Amino acid sequence: MGRDTFHCLRLLQAPSSLALDTSGLTPLLPSPHRIKAAGLKLQLCTNETQATRENFVKKLRALGFDISVAEVTAPAPAACRLLKERGLRPHLLVHDDLIPEFAEVDKTNPNCVVLGDAAENFTYANLNEAFRLLIGMEKPILISLGKGRYYKETDGLKLDVGAYMKALEYACDVQAEVVGKPAKRFFESALAELGVPPEQAIMIGDDIVSDVGGAQQCGMRALQVRTGKYRPSDENHPEVKPDAYVNNLAEAVDIILRHL
Amino acid sequence: MGRDTFHCLRLLQAPSSLALDTSGLTPLLPSPHRIKAAGLKLQLCTNETQATRENFVKKLRALGFDISVAEVTAPAPAACRLLKERGLRPHLLVHDDLIPEFAEVDKTNPNCVVLGDAAENFTYANLNEAFRLLIGMEKPILISLGKGRYYKETDGLKLDVGAYMKALEYACDVQAEVVGKPAKRFFESALAELGVPPEQAIMIGDDIVSDVGGAQQCGMRALQVRTGKYRPSDENHPEVKPDAYVNNLAEAVDIILRHL
Repeated sequence: MGRDTFHCLRLLQAPSSLALDTSGLTPLLPSPHRIKAAGLKLQLCTNETQATRENFVKKLRALGFDISVAEVTAPAPAACRLLKERGLRPHLLVHDDLIPEFAEVDKTNPNCVVLGDAAENFTYANLNEAFRLLIGMEKPILISLGKGRYYKETDGLKLDVGAYMKALEYACDVQAEVVGKPAKRFFESALAELGVPPEQAIMIGDDIVSDVGGAQQCGMRALQVRTGKYRPSDENHPEVKPDAYVNNLAEAVDIILRHL
Repeated sequence: MGRDTFHCLRLLQAPSSLALDTSGLTPLLPSPHRIKAAGLKLQLCTNETQATRENFVKKLRALGFDISVAEVTAPAPAACRLLKERGLRPHLLVHDDLIPEFAEVDKTNPNCVVLGDAAENFTYANLNEAFRLLIGMEKPILISLGKGRYYKETDGLKLDVGAYMKALEYACDVQAEVVGKPAKRFFESALAELGVPPEQAIMIGDDIVSDVGGAQQCGMRALQVRTGKYRPSDENHPEVKPDAYVNNLAEAVDIILRHL
């Protein structure tokens, strides 16, 4: 998830990058437009699962960002592709506002469970229902739209989808298939949407594991912005090392445009 | 948990054992009385955390079992001892009916979270509240009254405390301290309550890991009854091997009494 911070993948011949942070927005607003005006492509990779891409983009545009639906890669459409490929019919435990993304998917007689950040829908009854469906399957299939631990909202920290995923994994002795960052196939589908090979793209994000680690695993270079989820201790992460650091998105765009 | 099946620990000079199963009760009802009439001690080890011991015993007595409160070892009193020893003040996320067990415990300004099978209290809001308290602690302390995956009630399977424990462990990057079976200290406190060394006691239960494995880890012998949670595949368990099998509780008591 991460309603406070979202991350962009910008793809073209020259590597560059983009991250957006809704705190201290004003200096960042021109960034997507500046990127695109320079002839570069931009793709926003979000783990947002509390809204359809349409509503997500509407919110961004209302804030002043020049972003279109086609420029967004999100877990729900990636999950729909996966369901279709494998003939899976999901039981959905997701946020009400995400349900329209699954409109085209056959949901009768479910043979898997799709878990998103369901927020208020994470009731005792709904969790038991998802659990019973899984445990009743010969080989339970749990698809999780991310594996975040928690996120911050205006009224405080909230448990993210990853925590509920762990609960169901343990109860059913099953390993979830994660769609969304940092899954390799999520970044691959973002690259595919733009038709750009990984070595010509750069990811920028604030999350050392989900953004930087996930993109690098795909063969992309990745920058970490020192805003949002960034913590100084990230610079000593035992496994992931970004290709570079930038102080914020505006600085990242400046650097990118200078190197064109 | 396990409201369908509960297990007894019987302690005295001669090893023996006891397990109770509320399905097919009638032949089992005389068992506790027969054990005690033979001059043996009996201790019931339960992971029940949806009722105080008083109410748990009331339910058993209403069914016809000769059991007293002092003959019950349960996670909540074990947790209370642990809290007192370490000067911990809990935030409780437990079943309403269990709260009286914590009446004597200081709960102001919590410095740990105690998690039980809270059932309907496992709301989104309550889980977020417990999470926020934990993540706000310098060194989060999570005490879980068991680690069961699920249990069966008349209206179907329900997620047990272990699933919610995993959710909070993952979100807070912490390992819970489990009070209750199969924790070694839980069996130790049952033995201490009776003043009997482990080599003079036998555990009987239907759960290969929680009952048999936990008791053996303590130096006790353990029998598995082929009722309740027992599955034929348990007999090939990679780690735990009971000292013997019995078909049911009544048979166990027959054998015990014959060997006095």
